[in-house]
Amino acid sequence: MKSEQTFLELIDSFFPCDHDFIKLGRGDDCAVLTGNKDLCVSSDLFIEDIHFRQAYFSPEDIGYKALAVNISDIAAMGAKPIAFTMNIVAPPTLKNDFWKDFFKSMAILAKQNDIVLAGGDLSRGDKLMISITIFGIGGSTGFITRGNCHTGDILFTIGDLGLARTGLLALEKYGEKARTLFPAAVMAHLRPKPKVLIGTLLNAAGVKGLMDISDGLAQDLPRFLGADSGAELEIKEDSLNNDIKKFSEIIQHDPISFTLIGGEDYALLGAVSPFELGKAESVPGFSRIGTVTKAPGIIVNGNPFTGSGFDHFTKTETS
Amino acid sequence: MKSEQTFLELIDSFFPCDHDFIKLGRGDDCAVLTGNKDLCVSSDLFIEDIHFRQAYFSPEDIGYKALAVNISDIAAMGAKPIAFTMNIVAPPTLKNDFWKDFFKSMAILAKQNDIVLAGGDLSRGDKLMISITIFGIGGSTGFITRGNCHTGDILFTIGDLGLARTGLLALEKYGEKARTLFPAAVMAHLRPKPKVLIGTLLNAAGVKGLMDISDGLAQDLPRFLGADSGAELEIKEDSLNNDIKKFSEIIQHDPISFTLIGGEDYALLGAVSPFELGKAESVPGFSRIGTVTKAPGIIVNGNPFTGSGFDHFTKTETS
Repeated sequence: MKSEQTFLELIDSFFPCDHDFIKLGRGDDCAVLTGNKDLCVSSDLFIEDIHFRQAYFSPEDIGYKALAVNISDIAAMGAKPIAFTMNIVAPPTLKNDFWKDFFKSMAILAKQNDIVLAGGDLSRGDKLMISITIFGIGGSTGFITRGNCHTGDILFTIGDLGLARTGLLALEKYGEKARTLFPAAVMAHLRPKPKVLIGTLLNAAGVKGLMDISDGLAQDLPRFLGADSGAELEIKEDSLNNDIKKFSEIIQHDPISFTLIGGEDYALLGAVSPFELGKAESVPGFSRIGTVTKAPGIIVNGNPFTGSGFDHFTKTETS
Repeated sequence: MKSEQTFLELIDSFFPCDHDFIKLGRGDDCAVLTGNKDLCVSSDLFIEDIHFRQAYFSPEDIGYKALAVNISDIAAMGAKPIAFTMNIVAPPTLKNDFWKDFFKSMAILAKQNDIVLAGGDLSRGDKLMISITIFGIGGSTGFITRGNCHTGDILFTIGDLGLARTGLLALEKYGEKARTLFPAAVMAHLRPKPKVLIGTLLNAAGVKGLMDISDGLAQDLPRFLGADSGAELEIKEDSLNNDIKKFSEIIQHDPISFTLIGGEDYALLGAVSPFELGKAESVPGFSRIGTVTKAPGIIVNGNPFTGSGFDHFTKTETS
């Protein structure tokens, strides 16, 4: 990319500024968002060789996923995304064609979700990095936070657990061949689908708590429950995606614990009172995984679960 | 830093979550901002060896400036900052003591401005990077955008131009000695003062346009004026800070053009109708620099100005 101006012109060609929630678009010191509703806000990093590798992420995959992981946080509030800001650290080696594909794919996802790019910043750097902050509005029932659950509440997930981790490890192990060997898993890693519509349906269905599973169920479930509750889960091996079963057999890992460790699932974890189960159960993809217990700790298929997901400072693998 | 959890606990110890504009604080998938007013939003990167060097920026300086440059964008809208999100890329070499000093200094600036940390993300990386998105609310007269000026309007600045650039170049040339040789310039580079109160006073005084000068007046003035106007400026050498005069003599650069090229001034540039000048003129630091002309182009002290500021993709120096 020759200059900042060329870069900004490319962004302008892909991202229109007009939107019901934007009073003032990009190009000033700040953008102005119309403030007649509460806004939910979230911010995520997407960094080369930490969150993705250029070896198997196409420019389109990178542009898509950088925004998708942020939309996923809005979906987990039962909210609807409206706008985002984006800071980019761009290696000078990336050419115009890279950026065209990157922005095109991101712009399609933004348009599908009716989100406007409200501003951002740009810098040079050795590794490609995208830092996005995203805003959303709640439905008539507001936002769904984490937790709020009591003993006896039904725990559920929507979306595959462990499938994105299968895709990541398969891509690291087999490179391009992974696409044909584990197609569903590779797509779950490269192109996670944010569940905005499902989040709003769950909001309207009166679920008590909702959360985006991004660090794996084993780490995220205790965060969801808080310190004073536990859970009894029942996860059948039959219910797992074939790619997970096949891959965990190859690496000789128990498929259930592999699934629970997961990571980057971008699935939803929620809790609903047994008396309100009817509406929630009818939401597409609803999968009952267990029950909230008074005793802290996680029991899986009758046994205490001691595995864990990942920690951003101690992990060594790319994920 | 041992783990993500330790890091988050350190952040919690410095940044309280309670604030009039926060309905839901950090720790969920999103924070929720109370939405009864329009919000202005801006986002900036602050990156090691691009925007600062650890050789002469203390941890306190880095924490301070990362937030200050964002507050400066809110000030330039005549607005008041209320909240920010922060994504951090942290090299594992930085220890607990570094982060304590970093957060302490940032937290003091946040408290002085009554701003709450609403969320963020964290990752490992080779270079320290801070990506902040900040939100503000306007006064009873809303926000002040760039431009809106007509032929004959008075152009003014508030804050020193070229002083931060003097500080940067002196630190690069003399290292620690620069602190005693060019004390005002070094402080302007390490600790730029966001002009929130001044911005709100200018807003109440009815100025027509306002902008944050971050890339130098030579680059930012044409952005402020737009394509259809120019400016005649009068900048007296006497009015320049002594550090600028002294340093530009050493490097044998014309002090006026050095000042106009500037960079990272975080000063305000504004325009006011001659009929409304009275109130604006009484705002502390108001410095009249020229007049808007019909003819495009910038005339400085009677001569066309051809210098330029910096471009984030073509520049080579750290700034």
